[in-house]
Amino acid sequence: MKTVQEMGLLAKEAAARLAAAGTAEKNRGLAAIAQALREGKDAILAANREDLAAAEAAGMRRSMMDRLALTPERIGSIASAVEEVIALPDPVGTVDRGGLRPNGLSVTRVRVPLGVVGIIYEARPNVTVDAAALCLKSGNACILRGGKEAIRTNIALGKLMGAALEGAGLPAAAVQLVEDTTRESSGQMMKAQGLIDVLIPRGGAGLIRAVVENSTVPVIETGVGNCHVYVDSPCDLGMAVRIIENAKCSRPSVCNAAETLLVHRDVAEEFLPMAKAALDGWKVQLRGCPETRRILGDSVVPATEEDYETEFNDYILAVRVVADLEEAIAHIRRYSTGHSEAIVTGDYAHSREFTRRVDAAAVYVNASTRFTDGGQFGLGAEIGISTQKLHARGPMGLTELTTTKYVVLGSGQVR
Amino acid sequence: MKTVQEMGLLAKEAAARLAAAGTAEKNRGLAAIAQALREGKDAILAANREDLAAAEAAGMRRSMMDRLALTPERIGSIASAVEEVIALPDPVGTVDRGGLRPNGLSVTRVRVPLGVVGIIYEARPNVTVDAAALCLKSGNACILRGGKEAIRTNIALGKLMGAALEGAGLPAAAVQLVEDTTRESSGQMMKAQGLIDVLIPRGGAGLIRAVVENSTVPVIETGVGNCHVYVDSPCDLGMAVRIIENAKCSRPSVCNAAETLLVHRDVAEEFLPMAKAALDGWKVQLRGCPETRRILGDSVVPATEEDYETEFNDYILAVRVVADLEEAIAHIRRYSTGHSEAIVTGDYAHSREFTRRVDAAAVYVNASTRFTDGGQFGLGAEIGISTQKLHARGPMGLTELTTTKYVVLGSGQVR
Repeated sequence: MKTVQEMGLLAKEAAARLAAAGTAEKNRGLAAIAQALREGKDAILAANREDLAAAEAAGMRRSMMDRLALTPERIGSIASAVEEVIALPDPVGTVDRGGLRPNGLSVTRVRVPLGVVGIIYEARPNVTVDAAALCLKSGNACILRGGKEAIRTNIALGKLMGAALEGAGLPAAAVQLVEDTTRESSGQMMKAQGLIDVLIPRGGAGLIRAVVENSTVPVIETGVGNCHVYVDSPCDLGMAVRIIENAKCSRPSVCNAAETLLVHRDVAEEFLPMAKAALDGWKVQLRGCPETRRILGDSVVPATEEDYETEFNDYILAVRVVADLEEAIAHIRRYSTGHSEAIVTGDYAHSREFTRRVDAAAVYVNASTRFTDGGQFGLGAEIGISTQKLHARGPMGLTELTTTKYVVLGSGQVR
Repeated sequence: MKTVQEMGLLAKEAAARLAAAGTAEKNRGLAAIAQALREGKDAILAANREDLAAAEAAGMRRSMMDRLALTPERIGSIASAVEEVIALPDPVGTVDRGGLRPNGLSVTRVRVPLGVVGIIYEARPNVTVDAAALCLKSGNACILRGGKEAIRTNIALGKLMGAALEGAGLPAAAVQLVEDTTRESSGQMMKAQGLIDVLIPRGGAGLIRAVVENSTVPVIETGVGNCHVYVDSPCDLGMAVRIIENAKCSRPSVCNAAETLLVHRDVAEEFLPMAKAALDGWKVQLRGCPETRRILGDSVVPATEEDYETEFNDYILAVRVVADLEEAIAHIRRYSTGHSEAIVTGDYAHSREFTRRVDAAAVYVNASTRFTDGGQFGLGAEIGISTQKLHARGPMGLTELTTTKYVVLGSGQVR
């Protein structure tokens, strides 16, 4: 079993090779990976069965087991997702700024790979392949450190991908899997300055906080979403019901799901019973402010301060009646994690005010927060959703996995 | 004296106001600052005299005293630099990506200010005003923490700027100066997550390392430049002499000055004596490899491993003869801090090879490394030169002081 240090040195070598690889070459590597996954599905499924057996023995929850489980169909979709990355435009080599300076110097800013990308993630094995494919296409080597629950599956996937890359004439070390799933290996990744260029944690709030606080390698913070839907007055209340129902219930476990509903006082009496009727169909538990409970009755649990701070990732919704747009914005400013925030309104000035003053990766007018996603925004597949302001904000696609380099061509200029 | 925490809360308020300010309003603030500096020059000079007296008593070096000293002319240039920022385009509100999605959602990515920018810097008081002006124009509040040597001057500048902003109808807290110059205040800034959005250290390698290692606030690493000039074969040796002379001697104290000269073996016998003749005129001390000493004689100090690692910031140059382009690139890969790297060559393929394979913020062909500068690259004034890969790389102008926000306008879309 290699140490993170050893893997980092190999990754650095591989990154130099990948940075010089052309798009066609990288695409051949991706095609080889997709093919290897399809042809190697028996080995993957065998490893996955072992992970599942261990998980069952350890008493893992049903919903978590489901995220861990692979089937021939799921392997097929993972392979197809790799093939979709082939079709995405390669950002490497793009010139995004430049021109001739008065002294005759040609100054251009060119997109180049970041180098070595480290990813620390949790149970889902599809992340192993998705992340590898996006890093490869953007010319980066990657070091993947998944959770212990999926380790056998991940090792099988890593081996197949490494062999496929080698077969395509690319270095196997372009994609490396950390086999040590103790805290020690993630700690080593966080201190691997000079070997890992950027670290992306993907998972729960605890994992992300630990990486942000302990890493000396630059980190891109992802995914914690305490998202709000504010139902303004006036607005189309039927539309507001459809939006909160979708934002809360279409997939409660994801970061772009809504966690708190804010309602303008003037529409609360009419809107809240409509919203409750729709949410009851999904057995959503409501936790409301006194005003909400006055309108909807005692079946609504009293909301605590903590409820407004929490990303439930579940069929639970905090509800608060507010006096006006100003109070809604103040609430969002206080509790938002800066992910996705929505207003449902019929008022043009309010829509402008909300989008200008709410500080988040994505702000919505009259649409569900669930659209914050690389595919939905037209960027193609994403490596995560950044909730920080530096480097990338919102869905991170291939471009966000690159940096830039100024190339200056002269004819003897001095200053 | 306010704590960093208190300043952070005020800055956050001010940042919300600045984010909503239009370009004309911010430009009025800049004009008011320039005017206040000119009108208040006696107060600034009086404070500066106190700093200089204290510095002299403490036995500060002549060259450092010179960096600290202000004159009416220097204050005039500082004020003019503020006025130049007025003329720069405002990046806030620019749309850099976007369009209509198939489902009718309009998705646009808009530039917005970062929020609160913290800057930790050393003796030069002009940084206080330059940084404040760039932050203001890009809609950010700033918390400035200068060195203790310039503290009286900085306090005087901070007071004038705050009053000028207030007079122009903008919050005085948009520009705040940390009066506590102990380590405690910089430590507090490094831990001010949620109050400071980004921290930019400007100064020596020690300061920058301390901030990178200890900050939980995201950091943009700036300025450490161990820059190389590689003289290839074949090349115009006269041009190579002019370039190394300029890169080393035109301003040795800055980060884009050259520290090591690499010379292709085939031209070393002819080139090294030419280079030495030019560098002798500036009394540059050469520290060379055995081959360099064989050619130039014993007046060249033997170079140690440490010399190749050092940013001298002085009239000292390390010299090494290399076998070929490959060895030059390997040397640069090993010792470079990723700032600015140059090749002087007459070979087209070598120029392509060098710019593609050398990993730095700026790579040059046939020009001096001294051009790595916001003004020279056409970005206008700069807040620093980033040597990291995340967020910004190379000179950071106004755009690099912003982040983005996705604004999504719908008509009831759900997913």
